Amino acid sequence: MLKEFEKMSEPSEAELEKRLGAAREELAKKQILIKEKKLPVLIVLEGWDAAGKGSILGKIIKNMDPRFFKVSVMHQASEEELREPFLYRYFVKIPAAGKFMFFDGSWMDEVTRGYLKHELSPEDYKKRIQSIRRFERTLTDNGYLVMKFFFQISKKEQKKRLEGLLGDKNTKWRVEEGDLWQNKHYEECMKVYEQYIDDTNQSTAPWYLIDSKNKKWAELQMLEMLLKNIDIAVQNTAKPVPLLQNLFPLEPIPKLHEIPLDKSLTDEEYDKLLDKYQKKLRNLQNELYRKKIPVIIAYEGWDAAGKGGNIKRIASALDPRGYEVHPIASPEPAEKSRHYLWRFWNRLPKTGHTAIFDRTWYGRVMVERLEGFCSENDWQRAYNEINEFEKELYDWGAVIVKFWVQIDKDTQLARFTERQNTPEKQWKITDEDWRNREKWDQYEEAIDEMLQKTNTSYAPWHILESNDKKYARVKALKTLIQEIEKRL
Amino acid sequence: MLKEFEKMSEPSEAELEKRLGAAREELAKKQILIKEKKLPVLIVLEGWDAAGKGSILGKIIKNMDPRFFKVSVMHQASEEELREPFLYRYFVKIPAAGKFMFFDGSWMDEVTRGYLKHELSPEDYKKRIQSIRRFERTLTDNGYLVMKFFFQISKKEQKKRLEGLLGDKNTKWRVEEGDLWQNKHYEECMKVYEQYIDDTNQSTAPWYLIDSKNKKWAELQMLEMLLKNIDIAVQNTAKPVPLLQNLFPLEPIPKLHEIPLDKSLTDEEYDKLLDKYQKKLRNLQNELYRKKIPVIIAYEGWDAAGKGGNIKRIASALDPRGYEVHPIASPEPAEKSRHYLWRFWNRLPKTGHTAIFDRTWYGRVMVERLEGFCSENDWQRAYNEINEFEKELYDWGAVIVKFWVQIDKDTQLARFTERQNTPEKQWKITDEDWRNREKWDQYEEAIDEMLQKTNTSYAPWHILESNDKKYARVKALKTLIQEIEKRL
Repeated sequence: MLKEFEKMSEPSEAELEKRLGAAREELAKKQILIKEKKLPVLIVLEGWDAAGKGSILGKIIKNMDPRFFKVSVMHQASEEELREPFLYRYFVKIPAAGKFMFFDGSWMDEVTRGYLKHELSPEDYKKRIQSIRRFERTLTDNGYLVMKFFFQISKKEQKKRLEGLLGDKNTKWRVEEGDLWQNKHYEECMKVYEQYIDDTNQSTAPWYLIDSKNKKWAELQMLEMLLKNIDIAVQNTAKPVPLLQNLFPLEPIPKLHEIPLDKSLTDEEYDKLLDKYQKKLRNLQNELYRKKIPVIIAYEGWDAAGKGGNIKRIASALDPRGYEVHPIASPEPAEKSRHYLWRFWNRLPKTGHTAIFDRTWYGRVMVERLEGFCSENDWQRAYNEINEFEKELYDWGAVIVKFWVQIDKDTQLARFTERQNTPEKQWKITDEDWRNREKWDQYEEAIDEMLQKTNTSYAPWHILESNDKKYARVKALKTLIQEIEKRL
Repeated sequence: MLKEFEKMSEPSEAELEKRLGAAREELAKKQILIKEKKLPVLIVLEGWDAAGKGSILGKIIKNMDPRFFKVSVMHQASEEELREPFLYRYFVKIPAAGKFMFFDGSWMDEVTRGYLKHELSPEDYKKRIQSIRRFERTLTDNGYLVMKFFFQISKKEQKKRLEGLLGDKNTKWRVEEGDLWQNKHYEECMKVYEQYIDDTNQSTAPWYLIDSKNKKWAELQMLEMLLKNIDIAVQNTAKPVPLLQNLFPLEPIPKLHEIPLDKSLTDEEYDKLLDKYQKKLRNLQNELYRKKIPVIIAYEGWDAAGKGGNIKRIASALDPRGYEVHPIASPEPAEKSRHYLWRFWNRLPKTGHTAIFDRTWYGRVMVERLEGFCSENDWQRAYNEINEFEKELYDWGAVIVKFWVQIDKDTQLARFTERQNTPEKQWKITDEDWRNREKWDQYEEAIDEMLQKTNTSYAPWHILESNDKKYARVKALKTLIQEIEKRL
């Protein structure tokens, strides 16, 4: 494939200059269109060492307003990044609506390099490919334009270029050992690159091969492809996409109305058990740290169900250097203008650490669904996207504990009223809480659907019956301990 | 994957009946919507023998108006079908706009069976996968809704069902040897099916796995998935899709204005050469027939360039039992309501036979482009789609000869005027010809782009300089002979 792809008859020098001038000007204009249409554009540049992608990228961005783009040179992962899940360092860098992100090097480089160096087994390679396909698909499904360019030169040409660089003492430093290795193992690399491109060549996020012998011609090929697909993408913003089937193993879970809420603890029982489980949890935290296992705790529940107090009992058991609580409110502008999972990727713990989410990514299929903050297609797709997200965390090695804090409608009313009537608690109750309460039935339907569709075997939900808060707190601790112990 | 896919908690019998009733009613309504929106819907049913897809399909179509759907049971290819290219028998059956086509068995069955029986090598399997991905993608890119269902049962369940059928003398005949073989080699088949599903699971034409232990539940799963995606597809009709890069090897070709048109033959030379080459061609035809090589000859050219007379000189050299001439006019309603390549798939020759197309699929990037009969995205995508189409024919073993019959603008005027002034030729000249002539420059630009982008090494264009028709006719014969000899 790479050896014999399109040789679009390379234009004459004069025509090349003319088309290049036009394309550069066009790109300058397109920036504005992209901004207006709020299109996020993610561009991947890959290719052979010394193929010139850096210098071509340099030329392309010369025509752009620096406010509208960013360039990320993706070297090998740092020590810090290695403590995060695969794709983390890319996901946190996805562009906002209306902006360009150019990745100079990407997940392709990481995966093909790992495979070539035998650090990734064929099975792990296959798993990575699956993760990548899901990653790119969830971006394009959520309105991103994703284009991937591979800059192709022959073995001979690469050798010539590397020798040229080496022969000049001013450029000698630019040639790394890996470059020479690549040239020496050109055919082997080619085979792996071709396989990768074939494996990840989805029609919604396709690969474009760039004949890079002549740099101007390479720039023109990239620009013209880019411009054409921007035109198409701006016509497609917010279009619905096919719904995929969830293919993860789901466990049965009762509906909310089937859950008995009469469980309770006496004060004595509570004090005793709280103390016992908190101590136990603290000890486990040390072990998690030593074994570098990350823990992700997700809290969802009705307003006034007692999430805050529950979280406090978990958190207070933990060494504060090893955990973080993330209260999730409505998204900031920077968050709203990106994929809805972006702000959660950004808040993932390092290995050995714990992240506690006070409300979570499930907002997509609850409040965003009911308030119309996203389209029907968006939230219907989200169940699968969320299962994929959690699968990624699970494969990374995380313990994932998801709590639904459940109360009945009367209990909520009693707690609302109490808050209203207690001066120091009044801040906790807002008009919005009352408005949400009016939609109880709609919420209950959405929550039931959510529980059914995301109760995967690798990241199951746990119901905390919280009419009695003490019971719910002890159950949370106990559940967390059990889930951690399963992993240790 | 197949073993542990979504077990959406199977609803209770009562709920199942309720949802099934609703879904069946909904499908009846959706038919009308599909008709109104002119959406073509292609549905593939695959799965284990005895999984019940036939009976489920039977139930589903009970709710449909027979005018709106067709069912094709795809058995093994017939002798006739084996003389056509891979995918032929499926492509000719694609639904029209506003209609459903249900394929009971499909290209998946053909390819996985071939692989399991070692009739397809791993390399051939890979090629088939590529063909299938292109086939499904060109359908969805051109506005088709394509959904693929796999009906899953366990080895044990399959065995139980087959034994049940065998035990009853009324149903015994329904069990074929292949069914028993499949059950015996269940794990091996499973591996091949999973690989195939993974290889062809594109987000635009995804697979849906159906838990088929309970037939009503299986029907409901299929119906609900179908209904959801119909809703999405009707919102997406005529949306532009990303442009893919042509990855086929292209040869350089001159622009029309660079082609010298001063070539000519004397009457004597012409008579001599015509006779010589026609005899030669006739002999070659026999050899082609014996070797079962199909030939596809495609004629495009300016109005009054002399296509008709040129074709006549080829055709008259051939045994009429071995060739067919297909004059291509504007599409019939049945043709217009399907993928634009459909009418050409329908006119493909059998192996050993010759098809001559007087105008071709290149209408997409000439008249349809210039007259606005298709969208910009449609014709821009068509170069690659056409290259893929011709690659499919080439891989099948066809000799493909594409002629561009070239004259200059003055020559056209002279011939138009002569036609106008000669009573027996007046039928050959219409107002449309004059209107097209006014767009000469736009056509020239489109033709140049077409020649550049579709001059593949496996199906190159040949220019017939036809200011002198005699020269062009002899060149056509000579070129055809050369191309055939290359293959023999």
